Amino acid sequence: MPVTPPAHVAVLGLGLIGGSLLRRLADLGIAVTGYDADPATRAAARHILDGGRIADSVAATVADADLLVLAVPLPAAGPVLDEIRAAGYTGLLTDVTSVKGPLRDLAAEHCPDARWLGGHPMAGTAASGFAASDPDLFDGCAWVLCLEPETALDDWLRLAALVTGLGARAVPATADDHDAAVARISHAPHVVAAALVTGASAGEQGPLALALGAGSFRDGTRVAATRPALTAAMCGGNAAALRTVLDALLEQVSEVRRLLDEPDPVTALTGWFTPAHTVRASWPASPGSAEHVAAERAELLALGRAGGWVTSVAADGRVVMASTPPPSAPPL
Amino acid sequence: MPVTPPAHVAVLGLGLIGGSLLRRLADLGIAVTGYDADPATRAAARHILDGGRIADSVAATVADADLLVLAVPLPAAGPVLDEIRAAGYTGLLTDVTSVKGPLRDLAAEHCPDARWLGGHPMAGTAASGFAASDPDLFDGCAWVLCLEPETALDDWLRLAALVTGLGARAVPATADDHDAAVARISHAPHVVAAALVTGASAGEQGPLALALGAGSFRDGTRVAATRPALTAAMCGGNAAALRTVLDALLEQVSEVRRLLDEPDPVTALTGWFTPAHTVRASWPASPGSAEHVAAERAELLALGRAGGWVTSVAADGRVVMASTPPPSAPPL
Repeated sequence: MPVTPPAHVAVLGLGLIGGSLLRRLADLGIAVTGYDADPATRAAARHILDGGRIADSVAATVADADLLVLAVPLPAAGPVLDEIRAAGYTGLLTDVTSVKGPLRDLAAEHCPDARWLGGHPMAGTAASGFAASDPDLFDGCAWVLCLEPETALDDWLRLAALVTGLGARAVPATADDHDAAVARISHAPHVVAAALVTGASAGEQGPLALALGAGSFRDGTRVAATRPALTAAMCGGNAAALRTVLDALLEQVSEVRRLLDEPDPVTALTGWFTPAHTVRASWPASPGSAEHVAAERAELLALGRAGGWVTSVAADGRVVMASTPPPSAPPL
Repeated sequence: MPVTPPAHVAVLGLGLIGGSLLRRLADLGIAVTGYDADPATRAAARHILDGGRIADSVAATVADADLLVLAVPLPAAGPVLDEIRAAGYTGLLTDVTSVKGPLRDLAAEHCPDARWLGGHPMAGTAASGFAASDPDLFDGCAWVLCLEPETALDDWLRLAALVTGLGARAVPATADDHDAAVARISHAPHVVAAALVTGASAGEQGPLALALGAGSFRDGTRVAATRPALTAAMCGGNAAALRTVLDALLEQVSEVRRLLDEPDPVTALTGWFTPAHTVRASWPASPGSAEHVAAERAELLALGRAGGWVTSVAADGRVVMASTPPPSAPPL
């Protein structure tokens, strides 16, 4: 299946992710148009990029594009999708928000004539906004691209060709599998970080505890410094998946609580800590093997579920798949 | 009250902490003798230090010392304390283990004629053993020194003079307050890190989740890579304090679980995340003021409970106390 990468990419929303993407695409010589609702952000973007590449309306931005990247925060997605529809856009549409199920539903409701294919680059920094944008932000990051039953395989390959061209690893997954995964590796860690801070600082014993905090507290609570509105939007937007993960977490912590009452808690706890140690000590996984294969839907989904990714897409549609070895037990 | 710092320090156990301490003291020109039960560790220490400073028995190590630092893991403390008693040592004795109540009880049982004054430098790295030792390990770290009702104030000041001379901040606290604090800022973070890894990697959805893990997963689970036996000994050795902290943590996470079911979870969660954000965004605290004062027991304990520390001890016993401002709310 021949793959034609997008020729003209429009980016709507020029924050950290949208701004970084626009700059990287421009650096690669790909035709781009960018837009942000904030005039000051547009002005800042015009300082960095050729001024003609920043448009003053959604309609002007999408006019010549064959790929639209929605890079606005989740609460703004519905209204911007309405503007995209009003502009008559019916091509390929992706996004970069941290939850995919809600975006899928918003796209179907507000912009049903465009072909939505959700995306999520697992990249970010504590900073936000165009001023923090960085064309190298996506180097080596995992970039989820949703492969739903209704997704055309050649659309998926076009987007995978684009994001692997930026240096990212394209991970095929359904929106629901994505949302379950990020509840585990991002949203639950944010909840736990805040709970640790609240517990550490509570009551009369708080000041001494905070004064003694060192490496494990610093790293374990780093993301509690994220703006509460951002964290709440992320967690609240993925409530169903996060519920399941928090229930499992409550069970795990309750189990430790019980093991502390065992006659020999140290032995019991050693057993409890060991599986997590085995997994974490071999994370992140190194790619175990790479295969050049003709892309098939079922194979791509199986690759993503197995923790693998696509590293490149050739013009004939053949892809390079990298799989990962399962974690093996290092010596205790 | 005139303060005479220890003239000859013996360090028993030359792992990361003991080895780093011995090397730093020797660099400062303080008379030291070191010992480790492992002949290979003694040989390694003799390569770095003047060979005459490494003794071949506990008795030979403690012979000329006026301060003994017990730097062995908790399970080895009882037997080594027996050897110290058998050697006839009756001077000042401190330790560097991560729990203080159990050490207080072991010292009272196994070595009642020495004057125990517990210590805990909040320093460490992922590595362990003499090979990882580093004379600069204690620069700027908080070093708890136990101030119990039975502790002689001049002993506390002698030790505070020593550890502040190494570049550490001396934090006065009772053993019980210390143990409650480290359950909050170290032991609970270790439990939670392992629980996050176990949750992320569980079942068929584990490989995809691990492949998507980025910054919040990396930092939030870093300490899950610690050797399980070490983590279990630390948590099991502080079971009573850790129980209380885990109960509070379970309540916090259950509260988030409930807020996800609210009609407007994002607003409810924003309210829940905000206090932790306020605390974490202004952590670690900068010293707000420094005072030169004559050291009194009650003032020192109040300083520690308020999150402050001692930065130096003068020969006349006056100390410099640094207090910290309470966290203030930064703009959301």
